[in-house]
Amino acid sequence: MSRVFNFSAGPAVLPLEVLEEAQKQFVDYQGSGMSIMEGSHRAKDYMAVHAEAGANIRELMGLGDDKAVLFVPGGASMQFAFIPINLLGDGQTADYTNSGTWANKAIKEAKLIGNVNIAADTGSEIPTRVPALDELKLTENAAYLHITSNETVAGAQWKDFPETDAPLVADMSSDILSRPIDASKFGLIYAGLQKNLGPSGAALVIIDKELAERVPDTVSTMFKYKTYIENDSMFNTPPCFSIYILMLVTRWLKSKGIENVYAQNAEKAGKLYSAIDATEFYTGTAVKEYRSDMNVTFRLANHDLEPTFIEEATANGLSGLKGHRSVGGLRASIYNAFPPAGVDALVSFMQDFEQRHG
Amino acid sequence: MSRVFNFSAGPAVLPLEVLEEAQKQFVDYQGSGMSIMEGSHRAKDYMAVHAEAGANIRELMGLGDDKAVLFVPGGASMQFAFIPINLLGDGQTADYTNSGTWANKAIKEAKLIGNVNIAADTGSEIPTRVPALDELKLTENAAYLHITSNETVAGAQWKDFPETDAPLVADMSSDILSRPIDASKFGLIYAGLQKNLGPSGAALVIIDKELAERVPDTVSTMFKYKTYIENDSMFNTPPCFSIYILMLVTRWLKSKGIENVYAQNAEKAGKLYSAIDATEFYTGTAVKEYRSDMNVTFRLANHDLEPTFIEEATANGLSGLKGHRSVGGLRASIYNAFPPAGVDALVSFMQDFEQRHG
Repeated sequence: MSRVFNFSAGPAVLPLEVLEEAQKQFVDYQGSGMSIMEGSHRAKDYMAVHAEAGANIRELMGLGDDKAVLFVPGGASMQFAFIPINLLGDGQTADYTNSGTWANKAIKEAKLIGNVNIAADTGSEIPTRVPALDELKLTENAAYLHITSNETVAGAQWKDFPETDAPLVADMSSDILSRPIDASKFGLIYAGLQKNLGPSGAALVIIDKELAERVPDTVSTMFKYKTYIENDSMFNTPPCFSIYILMLVTRWLKSKGIENVYAQNAEKAGKLYSAIDATEFYTGTAVKEYRSDMNVTFRLANHDLEPTFIEEATANGLSGLKGHRSVGGLRASIYNAFPPAGVDALVSFMQDFEQRHG
Repeated sequence: MSRVFNFSAGPAVLPLEVLEEAQKQFVDYQGSGMSIMEGSHRAKDYMAVHAEAGANIRELMGLGDDKAVLFVPGGASMQFAFIPINLLGDGQTADYTNSGTWANKAIKEAKLIGNVNIAADTGSEIPTRVPALDELKLTENAAYLHITSNETVAGAQWKDFPETDAPLVADMSSDILSRPIDASKFGLIYAGLQKNLGPSGAALVIIDKELAERVPDTVSTMFKYKTYIENDSMFNTPPCFSIYILMLVTRWLKSKGIENVYAQNAEKAGKLYSAIDATEFYTGTAVKEYRSDMNVTFRLANHDLEPTFIEEATANGLSGLKGHRSVGGLRASIYNAFPPAGVDALVSFMQDFEQRHG
């Protein structure tokens, strides 16, 4: 088997060790005579998986007892609705920062539920960036402040987080567990699994238990965080296989250590940005101080050459470099599981491509 | 590897051929150099899977162009909320039949959204059953009539479906594609995947496109069936791996033919019910004419022997026979993928157990 270097923005590359382990166990999970997909979610095999998945997240993120770890069906898009439904009471206002495509989607859904104040808006700036901390115009007694810690399309990332009185809510879909953070500063952290955690179709939610009490009684049972807290995410049948893969991915992360994963991520991104900055043939599309370590967005000075770049890269085993369909250009998504050798291969290819087409 | 006979009610047994195929492709999908879990949902490999999954469902259920096939995150429990949110307008009434645990949960969620009329209630009858067609007390101009085509816990199943003016909505989680039905009679059919279709965490929804137009504009984007229809279930990243397994399962079903699958299901259930009826040592818990072909529920005349029955059965490779924790007793779930040899093995075990303990 020859494994390509997969720069897809999500669903995205998973650790090869995890895939191989899951493959080995796929038909007969640990000698149980069945797949982990086929067993009851209340049987001991799956219960152990579920418990380890939660415990791994707790350990990796250093969570206190005030936080609950939840597994919720759907991805971040579903959470865009869950959050205001659970946290934004009548007559209250939620602060949202607009930093691009994903923040914008979150804002649109929040507006369907209640009052929204745009605390800062860099959503249509080019070069792309996230707001600076001193730009935020916060509402007094806001229900919460929502940020998108990493804009997957724009390739821009919050490097420091705001200090707020209101609970801080963050969409970390594309950079969760990619760097050490102080989780105690957040009221709610959420992430679709399909970038740094596992397969698509579910979200990880980390929430202050107290915050989850805000939800009105009239909200549908499956839309309430409280339901997931009270039933350890097993009110209904959870997405067992997705959580199983998340368990393996977090086990893999624990074996590396978040500090080491972060150092490697910074090194991978640094190499790519250096290659981009070394020549005028390429241009980074995000403001330098907000450049994402996860999604490296760039363009060729000659935009017309971009389709050729993508085509030749693909032929060279460098897959998924096309920018998001809404903005075009190029994007190298290099999540935790993306191998450093793939970054070296892309840098070499970029230099070679410039020599041939520059 | 020795495969157990897995009588789990869900997540449940999947076809061995499907598991083996998915295992073979797990790390390197069709020579693409990556897992199907790792590729973009908009890349050609996954798009082909998605299209085939939808087309297989269309063909197997004989759907007309007026129907849409949707893949929605979460299972049936999430649909209990989606349905009234999408279909039950202000001032309207929805008719629900209560036939047990699952119908009851659907009713509870509908009541959070709007007016509900209980058209018939067999929910707490013992022996268990579903309502007879002539028992239904329907509301004039009801928004819809909801039924649970098979009660997984009670082991009772609708054998004929009501003719109604209002759209007929059916939770078919535990008997979808287990028998031929006339899908044109239903306004909406839904099913969590984890019994007859694939892994847990997503639902299949088949809906009249026109019915989906009822939804108010103010509903969250991810809760509207319209969103899924307009975006071919790709407004957000769908649960790709779950849909991939569903595609393989439906491909397997097509190779068998629904009529043959149904005949085999009826034969499997028939054998078990005959074994139960052959002696007073065992008693079926559902009224005969409503007995489920999917979930065979029964008790030992001596209830105290049931834990021993379960323990000995498990030791003999007959797994998952414990009844639902809410009702106790015994339950043999024998979905499409459950092998006939497993039914023969259970019948032999039952006879042997009676000889030793009778």
